[in-house]
Amino acid sequence: LVQPFTDLITPDPSNPQPIYLQIGGKLTSLITGGRLAAGHRLPSTRELATLLGVHRKTVIRAYDELLVQGWLESQRGRGTFVATRLPGVRPRSWALPQAKEKYKAVRKENPPARDAKALAGFLVPWAPHLEREDPKYTFACHLDDGLPDPRIAPLSDLARGYRAQLLTGRQYTRLGYNDPRGSSLLRETLPSYLDETRGLKITENNLLIVRGTVMGVYLISTGLIRKGDVVAVSDPTWAGAVMNFAQAGAELVRIGSDGDGLAVDELEALCRQRTVRLVYITSHHNYPTTLPLRPDRRLQLLRLAETHRFIILEDDYDYDFHYQNKPHLPLASADKAGMVLYCGSFTKTISPAIRVGYIVGPENVIQHLAKIRRIIDRQGDTLLENAMAMLLQNGVIQRHLRKALKLYKERRDVFCELLRSKLGESVNFHVPEGGMAVWTRFDPSIDLEVLAAEAAKKDLFISSGRQHDTETIRRNATRLGFASSTIQELHAAVEILSGILNGNK
Amino acid sequence: LVQPFTDLITPDPSNPQPIYLQIGGKLTSLITGGRLAAGHRLPSTRELATLLGVHRKTVIRAYDELLVQGWLESQRGRGTFVATRLPGVRPRSWALPQAKEKYKAVRKENPPARDAKALAGFLVPWAPHLEREDPKYTFACHLDDGLPDPRIAPLSDLARGYRAQLLTGRQYTRLGYNDPRGSSLLRETLPSYLDETRGLKITENNLLIVRGTVMGVYLISTGLIRKGDVVAVSDPTWAGAVMNFAQAGAELVRIGSDGDGLAVDELEALCRQRTVRLVYITSHHNYPTTLPLRPDRRLQLLRLAETHRFIILEDDYDYDFHYQNKPHLPLASADKAGMVLYCGSFTKTISPAIRVGYIVGPENVIQHLAKIRRIIDRQGDTLLENAMAMLLQNGVIQRHLRKALKLYKERRDVFCELLRSKLGESVNFHVPEGGMAVWTRFDPSIDLEVLAAEAAKKDLFISSGRQHDTETIRRNATRLGFASSTIQELHAAVEILSGILNGNK
Repeated sequence: LVQPFTDLITPDPSNPQPIYLQIGGKLTSLITGGRLAAGHRLPSTRELATLLGVHRKTVIRAYDELLVQGWLESQRGRGTFVATRLPGVRPRSWALPQAKEKYKAVRKENPPARDAKALAGFLVPWAPHLEREDPKYTFACHLDDGLPDPRIAPLSDLARGYRAQLLTGRQYTRLGYNDPRGSSLLRETLPSYLDETRGLKITENNLLIVRGTVMGVYLISTGLIRKGDVVAVSDPTWAGAVMNFAQAGAELVRIGSDGDGLAVDELEALCRQRTVRLVYITSHHNYPTTLPLRPDRRLQLLRLAETHRFIILEDDYDYDFHYQNKPHLPLASADKAGMVLYCGSFTKTISPAIRVGYIVGPENVIQHLAKIRRIIDRQGDTLLENAMAMLLQNGVIQRHLRKALKLYKERRDVFCELLRSKLGESVNFHVPEGGMAVWTRFDPSIDLEVLAAEAAKKDLFISSGRQHDTETIRRNATRLGFASSTIQELHAAVEILSGILNGNK
Repeated sequence: LVQPFTDLITPDPSNPQPIYLQIGGKLTSLITGGRLAAGHRLPSTRELATLLGVHRKTVIRAYDELLVQGWLESQRGRGTFVATRLPGVRPRSWALPQAKEKYKAVRKENPPARDAKALAGFLVPWAPHLEREDPKYTFACHLDDGLPDPRIAPLSDLARGYRAQLLTGRQYTRLGYNDPRGSSLLRETLPSYLDETRGLKITENNLLIVRGTVMGVYLISTGLIRKGDVVAVSDPTWAGAVMNFAQAGAELVRIGSDGDGLAVDELEALCRQRTVRLVYITSHHNYPTTLPLRPDRRLQLLRLAETHRFIILEDDYDYDFHYQNKPHLPLASADKAGMVLYCGSFTKTISPAIRVGYIVGPENVIQHLAKIRRIIDRQGDTLLENAMAMLLQNGVIQRHLRKALKLYKERRDVFCELLRSKLGESVNFHVPEGGMAVWTRFDPSIDLEVLAAEAAKKDLFISSGRQHDTETIRRNATRLGFASSTIQELHAAVEILSGILNGNK
């Protein structure tokens, strides 16, 4: 009777799995393998502990586990038995994990035992255009969507900021639950910064700190758009915003844009026919074309919003990067009617993984959106928000921006000259006055998807630009980001493109 | 003609506002004050630059700004004039910020010029019970909801982890956009950890990293609950989950609970009458009562889910803290039918501001929820997720948990003895087998809201427990957290409560 236990149950102390789990696993296989029949009386915990040379508590834990799973039954005063009716529920597998490299191992060999498709019918339908895969950022070279260069960012300062946040002051308060609107330090710091840089006159109650512009658009879509509302966007526009409006159930209307930005006359005509709920605009450098909205159209847009009572969602994603010395203050700075909600971000200031942005709006809207934020993820990243506030107060961000602006301008000039001299008539573009990418139209004879695939083979990322197309319009254009590459890297990237295009001729 | 310019426009280089903004502001006040009439010709930029002793580019920027705002008009070849029709849009105010303490100043004195209530009618209605204010965490003493003690957490290790993430490796990739499901390092690390600690057999494709349990509940509510679906919860339960189910439009049904957890028989009766979509359960230590679900009820619940096809949302918020040496593996570990979605979190492991948690579920559900995550905030905090993975691989988290478990057990024992000896018959409680709080029922003669208010006056936080009440049931009970206070602090806190209660007699 005791034979199987001493023979088959050999706890291995070098195994990272706890001994009680090892014993439990062996007992289960003895039961499923038929060595221990239903109704069989098990040794007492004291007996088995002695047999196996382990502490009695360990055996108690193993038995308890199997009692919970239904493999064993306990009868008061009589002992522990293999259950007469084995559970319909299969217990978790007891496979022993590899001791070495265990945390790094991708456990593809160990799929879950459960039915993987049981909930397939439970998924709330989701807009099909959200299926688009995100690009990879692991190429050696990249002409991306317009990302910053983290190699020049004040990352040491940020690391010191994190450290100070973690290790100084009263940790219970600072590292505890906080205001869903964001860290009070950052909310007290931003009004002055936004006043000086953008002419925004606000208090901390007009601010909701978010994890990047996309969260701003999500909160506004969830909190201010009802199913069936008309939302107007420029064509082309940012697919990330469109995803959110679509999922909120909005009816999307695309308004044309030309060299001076959104065709506001066309929007006005729409307003006469339909009730427009929200207009989404990247006024400073229109996304993806990088063109600023012409001043008279800015005023016309503000007047339209006041007359027709629609929200202007102003996404000022790369306000900090303008190379022509002309200030274009945001629409929000001249918004007397209170119809503008403004989204800004530090994503392009440091790096996309540093996810801090903000919504500027009337206090009642901020409070409303904070309630939504509260049930989504409770609060932002207090450590990061406080660290960013420190970097703003010390002028680190401001110094970094001055340095980056100078560097990116050089990179823009070099890159545009390279496009001109190396790609010649294959491409058509304006030198962007600001931003971090060149909106590049390719000759119709060039298939951008093929070009992107060929470039990928040479370890260069470019986007096919398909996300800027609609069902009816194929633009054959893409954004080529210059800011994240050094001048040498820009040379190498254009050399690769040139090689592919000349090889194709 | 030049008089007002030299007299009134005196740029101040020590003022943090850029000179061009100072000039623009003065010009605007000269216009609104009537000193510069409509149609008045301004000096050329060269002239004004000489008059003011500033660079000509600075004046160009000031003029450009006012042209954009509509205060000035430019006539090609003739010069710049005060606009004949002044803009309906008032420009941003040009008030000069304080140079000192500017970033720390809360700018209450400087309210926005715009109409603050214009969007009041635009707010999508929101469930009224979400209005509850969160407690403050700034008291000297606190018997909180069951929070950890960050003073004993491995914060130096975490700071080193952040630093390593920021400063080593290829920053463009690591600090760029990443997988919405979470950092691949953490997703590769967690399966082994969850296997060893919880018996969960999963791969990285069964994991979605979230910013705490509340985000897990939000994503599941958004992605799997349709308006009108029946969601069953225990009574009492966690108000944070209820907020999410309510906002998703679910019909909430409260199932009774007793000393052995959820009354599964009552749930079974409900299932015979109604189609239940989801059952929310804190199986390990029922929230707020801390009682574990009895083993046979666990099996019964799993069987019910399989038979009646409802989702079990298992919130295992404080799995790591159990003091009785009995393993209670999660329901998810025995879920053959694939009906369990499991939420875990490191919030209680380190501190609430360290917002890392995870959903474990079938791959198709994880992919579905990742699409929602993608449009909410794009991705989690890669730096933090990678740093946590490092702490798991180095065993830092595991060592911390062993230390914390020992310490919290001592604090629990001391605290329960204090409640017994100092508060006597005023309170009624069970010593919790696990978790970080004592579910404490107060004598009906004691008004908990008054007690909480009196305690606050003595700088002690306790919750009134009102969030655990329903419209019909007043429990007069609250959670008193013991884990975040030292033994001396626990003595002080109970002394305060005892003083108030004895003073009331």
